[in-house]
Amino acid sequence: MLLDALKKYDVILASGSPRRKELLAAMGIEFRVEVYPVEETVPPGLSPAEAATYLSRLKSTNFPEEKCTEHTLIITADTIVASGNELLEKSANAEEAAAMLRKLSGTKHEVITGVSLRIGNRIHDFRACTEVYFKTLTEAELQYYITRYHPFDKAGSYGIQEWIGHIGIQRIEGSYFNVMGLPTHQLYEELEHLISH
Amino acid sequence: MLLDALKKYDVILASGSPRRKELLAAMGIEFRVEVYPVEETVPPGLSPAEAATYLSRLKSTNFPEEKCTEHTLIITADTIVASGNELLEKSANAEEAAAMLRKLSGTKHEVITGVSLRIGNRIHDFRACTEVYFKTLTEAELQYYITRYHPFDKAGSYGIQEWIGHIGIQRIEGSYFNVMGLPTHQLYEELEHLISH
Repeated sequence: MLLDALKKYDVILASGSPRRKELLAAMGIEFRVEVYPVEETVPPGLSPAEAATYLSRLKSTNFPEEKCTEHTLIITADTIVASGNELLEKSANAEEAAAMLRKLSGTKHEVITGVSLRIGNRIHDFRACTEVYFKTLTEAELQYYITRYHPFDKAGSYGIQEWIGHIGIQRIEGSYFNVMGLPTHQLYEELEHLISH
Repeated sequence: MLLDALKKYDVILASGSPRRKELLAAMGIEFRVEVYPVEETVPPGLSPAEAATYLSRLKSTNFPEEKCTEHTLIITADTIVASGNELLEKSANAEEAAAMLRKLSGTKHEVITGVSLRIGNRIHDFRACTEVYFKTLTEAELQYYITRYHPFDKAGSYGIQEWIGHIGIQRIEGSYFNVMGLPTHQLYEELEHLISH
């Protein structure tokens, strides 16, 4: 099984996200966290999906080359929220968060996570997309959420695992864990392909 | 907002499920747990969806009448797993759990939660359905899961929030929290209708 095959590798999650750490642990994978910050700037002209892959790959190529051996597996990821062709990034304050949540209210958006798997100098990329349908949020609801949860570290200014995800999301199509930050099922499958080939 | 309106009620979750307790708390609702066990027998001839509503209503009518005032809100629920028209109940042991997971492997099934809301002697029922798509599970994977997680207290013999949910579920259509045991968004909406009318 994959979990046995992975024991030959030093698995490194190069992400500071506590949600990703939790998700990778829930997959039964043993790993450690080691993060090298990158400047998260996306070149103009990329679609939201391409931006997710661009950033996960940037985090991967940015990992110090001398640490990338044939027995090291480095996992990087980037999760973006897209409303149509518009990228909704992190918000800086309560006003920006409220504006973003008003945009998501009563409509569908996409959450895309780009993932890069690096062994030595070979990098394999993939991405997953989940469609998320928000109910119409009242001003009282979004102010309640922002005041209590301060969702400024999150793309799209919300966490599906928080209050607003419980009361505000009508349905999703795709992977729930992808919305949290890591498409766990697809990661498992891609690791199987990578490790057994 | 609903959370303010609910403060007029003594909210009781009549369910022993730790997942339901966690989900109701995540909705920001203040409540206490009080459970009166019922014999969970479904009359022949009911569809899986009807069985879920039958059982949540049974738990509601079974709640001691003298405790059901106009200021008491009693929430009961029953979650069932249906593969086509077949109801997959809880499994008694590892062999039954494995047989059930082999049935879910590589195919789609439905998770339906019936919910009953009782104030005084009035009971309002609703239900939610989520479609869940499992990848083809290997024998090694299902044995790994059963040995470590003992999923015998769960309809369909799996928990979406456990290892098998992370690595084995390709996609869902509907509410993730419904699969865990309570359709939180729909519960919020139904409570709004009930309390404000």
